[in-house]
Amino acid sequence: MIPNGLCIGLDVDIDKFPQHLRGNINAIVEFNKEIIASTREYASAYKANSAFYEQYGVEGVKALYETRKLVGSHYFILDAKRGDIGNTSRAYAIAAFNDMGADALTVSPYMGEDSVKPFLNFPNKCVYVLALTSNAGSSDFQRLSVGGEPLYKKVIQTAMQWERVSELGFVVGAMHPSEMRELRGEFPDVPFLIPGIGAQGGDVQQLVRANYKGPALFNASRSILYSGNGSDFAEKARNEAKKIWDELKIA
Amino acid sequence: MIPNGLCIGLDVDIDKFPQHLRGNINAIVEFNKEIIASTREYASAYKANSAFYEQYGVEGVKALYETRKLVGSHYFILDAKRGDIGNTSRAYAIAAFNDMGADALTVSPYMGEDSVKPFLNFPNKCVYVLALTSNAGSSDFQRLSVGGEPLYKKVIQTAMQWERVSELGFVVGAMHPSEMRELRGEFPDVPFLIPGIGAQGGDVQQLVRANYKGPALFNASRSILYSGNGSDFAEKARNEAKKIWDELKIA
Repeated sequence: MIPNGLCIGLDVDIDKFPQHLRGNINAIVEFNKEIIASTREYASAYKANSAFYEQYGVEGVKALYETRKLVGSHYFILDAKRGDIGNTSRAYAIAAFNDMGADALTVSPYMGEDSVKPFLNFPNKCVYVLALTSNAGSSDFQRLSVGGEPLYKKVIQTAMQWERVSELGFVVGAMHPSEMRELRGEFPDVPFLIPGIGAQGGDVQQLVRANYKGPALFNASRSILYSGNGSDFAEKARNEAKKIWDELKIA
Repeated sequence: MIPNGLCIGLDVDIDKFPQHLRGNINAIVEFNKEIIASTREYASAYKANSAFYEQYGVEGVKALYETRKLVGSHYFILDAKRGDIGNTSRAYAIAAFNDMGADALTVSPYMGEDSVKPFLNFPNKCVYVLALTSNAGSSDFQRLSVGGEPLYKKVIQTAMQWERVSELGFVVGAMHPSEMRELRGEFPDVPFLIPGIGAQGGDVQQLVRANYKGPALFNASRSILYSGNGSDFAEKARNEAKKIWDELKIA
């Protein structure tokens, strides 16, 4: 079952690491280990975006696998936005769910049903399909009107009809509280993964109200990870995580 | 510069390897080495789909990097269909273009301009944006009408307006010769990557005519790689590659 609450995004960037670890590819696992240990209490889930590991080549991918192990029994989302033709998506699903042991994976809907279906065949796993993302470019195609409705809504409506064994949720960015409110009217019980609080600037209170207590993980990454740059970085991260956790609880 | 002609997709599947290599993860590089050596003469480019390597975990990713080296001075496309918010796409671009040294990368347009832009900042590299893919699911969203035109066409029109340093091309699947003909009317000089000939069944002659000698790479994967299952697999692959190469030339 997907938990609700705060999701911490482990978006590693060795150039933003605290002084004593800065620039060191071999410190990725150590950095994540301290962050995870100090924030577990407030995190319902951890999310690793594959890109930030892949940018460091094979060593980075190794560190991603190690990081997944460190997350342990906490819920682990691989944010990789995968999607391809059927047998290829199946290979991505095996990589994420079987090899890495991710609990959930983000998937792009652009290629349609047979590109998402292979991900939906895994019991006790969750697929978050991109709907309305947190970036400005979300208006380029996701908001285009198809038959009187925006494409992102059509994506949700269509995907909800697909046969599935896995759980199904959607990515809805924190920058869109009014659209969130509207979506919750139509889909009150559908799990949302909500990136963009913290550094990307989404207003937590407004957002939580717009979500009407629907099942949701609210993700913050950089604002937590890089709130300190000294040897007390993990403690600073913990304080920042608690702050957001409190906001989510009060709202 | 992007070449034209036959692209060979190195879609590795150890369960389809020839008898003496079958099921052996450590044989991926050896398999690709023989395939590449025997087909170089007919291949204008090689394409590796990241999924087929990622499915074998860290060892698979290592084999992907090794495979890129084996391709050497031939044109190398990383087919990974990446795309994310700006700083994340930048990390994917670094992984593909700098770390791996790919000449081209496939990218998903769903998240819009700022998700594609970081890929477009690399001189002498090429970005293939997904337009109309080769799978049946391409009709679910890509063919939806937006303002009287199908979304896939809107994607091409929109992306062509984006500032860029990299070259820009589009993925148009081999299953859609009539749409290809129409697109060539509007975009005669835009590079297309055309997957789906061979195992996926696209008719080469019809397709080549529909392309009107526009700049294009026609990709075949499984039909070439797995045309033999004995120790002569590389020779069989060469014969199959030559067959398609002839068809492309004659058409």
